[in-house]
Amino acid sequence: MYKVGIVGATGVVGRTILRVLEERSFPVAEMKLLASGRSEGTKLSFRGEEITVLETRRDNLRGMDLVFFAAGTDISSEFAPVAVEKGAVVIDKSNAFRMDPEVPLVVPEVNEEALAGHEGLIASPNCSTIQLVVAVAPLHRAAGLRTVIVSTYQSVSGAGAEALSELDEESRASLEGRKHHRKVFTHPIAFNLIPAIDSFDDLGFTAEEMKLVRETRKILSHPTLAITATAVRVPVRVGHSEAVTVELETRVTPEQARRILAQAPGVVVADDPSRDLYPLPVAVEGKDEVYVGRIREGLVGERWLNLWVVADNLRKGAATNAVQIAEALARRGEI
Amino acid sequence: MYKVGIVGATGVVGRTILRVLEERSFPVAEMKLLASGRSEGTKLSFRGEEITVLETRRDNLRGMDLVFFAAGTDISSEFAPVAVEKGAVVIDKSNAFRMDPEVPLVVPEVNEEALAGHEGLIASPNCSTIQLVVAVAPLHRAAGLRTVIVSTYQSVSGAGAEALSELDEESRASLEGRKHHRKVFTHPIAFNLIPAIDSFDDLGFTAEEMKLVRETRKILSHPTLAITATAVRVPVRVGHSEAVTVELETRVTPEQARRILAQAPGVVVADDPSRDLYPLPVAVEGKDEVYVGRIREGLVGERWLNLWVVADNLRKGAATNAVQIAEALARRGEI
Repeated sequence: MYKVGIVGATGVVGRTILRVLEERSFPVAEMKLLASGRSEGTKLSFRGEEITVLETRRDNLRGMDLVFFAAGTDISSEFAPVAVEKGAVVIDKSNAFRMDPEVPLVVPEVNEEALAGHEGLIASPNCSTIQLVVAVAPLHRAAGLRTVIVSTYQSVSGAGAEALSELDEESRASLEGRKHHRKVFTHPIAFNLIPAIDSFDDLGFTAEEMKLVRETRKILSHPTLAITATAVRVPVRVGHSEAVTVELETRVTPEQARRILAQAPGVVVADDPSRDLYPLPVAVEGKDEVYVGRIREGLVGERWLNLWVVADNLRKGAATNAVQIAEALARRGEI
Repeated sequence: MYKVGIVGATGVVGRTILRVLEERSFPVAEMKLLASGRSEGTKLSFRGEEITVLETRRDNLRGMDLVFFAAGTDISSEFAPVAVEKGAVVIDKSNAFRMDPEVPLVVPEVNEEALAGHEGLIASPNCSTIQLVVAVAPLHRAAGLRTVIVSTYQSVSGAGAEALSELDEESRASLEGRKHHRKVFTHPIAFNLIPAIDSFDDLGFTAEEMKLVRETRKILSHPTLAITATAVRVPVRVGHSEAVTVELETRVTPEQARRILAQAPGVVVADDPSRDLYPLPVAVEGKDEVYVGRIREGLVGERWLNLWVVADNLRKGAATNAVQIAEALARRGEI
């Protein structure tokens, strides 16, 4: 039984971590919830008990075995090392430490072994990376991954609770022919697409796109993987989707890929066009698996394949992956 | 001055053709509007005049110089040859004749020369193909196109007026927590994505995807082009978007690509992330050009590039392209 903390407990991901820990009966001896000063005093329910949220401060980070960080990069940078120093193992959902060579970046179905010998801090990847690697790692194991080209269709919940409200408010205003004053997005999101998630680098890539590129290479231990990404925000509430085209070292037929993926941990193959079956964001909401469908030839060469990959970005893309890391640590006796 | 007809005049595309002919002052001596029996008697306005819609019948297809067909594949298959036989040049927006080797498939900015020696029937490509070829043909001319990988984000207006109503009704119902009974789409489209447009073939590709593949090869006269597509319907009203990754025969830098595209006919480069400028579907509605942005390295090899391509599917993707074909025919004296 572990003394567990969640930093960022009142956010969309923090609340989902709390729910997933309860659903999966993680062995929690004691639960401490932390958030910004604004949320101090908020009460959240865990296993039928009301827990009062405390402010994230150094002195509140003592006496825990395991702390989930889900409060953004700045908070993680400042407080995650403090929690480790005070004896906890930290599972960090932010971007702060993911590319640090000393920090394991883990998707348990793909590279659980990277947890071995951790130094107290484990990073959980970005949402869009997690579902991509769960889907392509089994193909990589079977036939070697050479190239990945991914276009994302990312839901608004990835931008937080205020973004979800903005989608609803703006959609309502559009349907009623009213003006709406945006607070979260730079451009309209209702009935529109925004091909820009996070800031741009000098080469014209967004941080979201480069996370997909760099994190995938690290998780697959494949530093020379040829990979590119276009990340697009779409007016969907929950569930990220990805159109993925891969080149393998040796040929895998669509039928073989379907078999490989059907046996892969954490993957559900949903691929029967004759019954109108393919992964849909509305259908994966609340699910912990990564759904793969539209498995077909790549057409651009015989070692290429096309896939359509959908997952709940708040669960497998965030909370569930973090909790699965905790479960793996517990199972391996590394906590 | 020409005697002009529009078959399918009351549909979304037919009405847009009528508007575009008026806007561009096409030299119309007489306008005849045709549609299904259900729409007979409907009045539509052209240059301030009310025109009564007639039923599409053999005897109504006489006495015209030029007929636009925008009523679906079955109507074109049955009546386009009749109109040609009765002396008209037909510009067909349907899929009926596009891959017929005797029929030119034309995007004027790209392959106007294919109109030479036509036999009375000219096909206009599918919406998603048109914007793709307008964007990639200039790169093909400059450096040779080897591979195209495209993921589409296609608006609901591509499925017609009833689909647009369904998006609005279903969005309203979702916001109000009500059930909605679908008539057009197989799955919810409000706040969702449908990775399936049109029917599936034995290889698991949709007809929409294979149109992109085959039509692009024909228009570019590049039968060996390596090209693959994933076509996805998104909850956007008007404007199709495409994430496009291309491989060229010789290297083109993003800066060179930007220059090539800025000079290309029918293209607007909208590419300045520092000012949050990139093509958006809501911003291209009503426009006749193809907007290209997010021009950047392909990352997967030095001869690769990434692009984001957006156009109004009802205008450049349908009506405007058909009217531009008519203008080219008139200019070339082939009508």
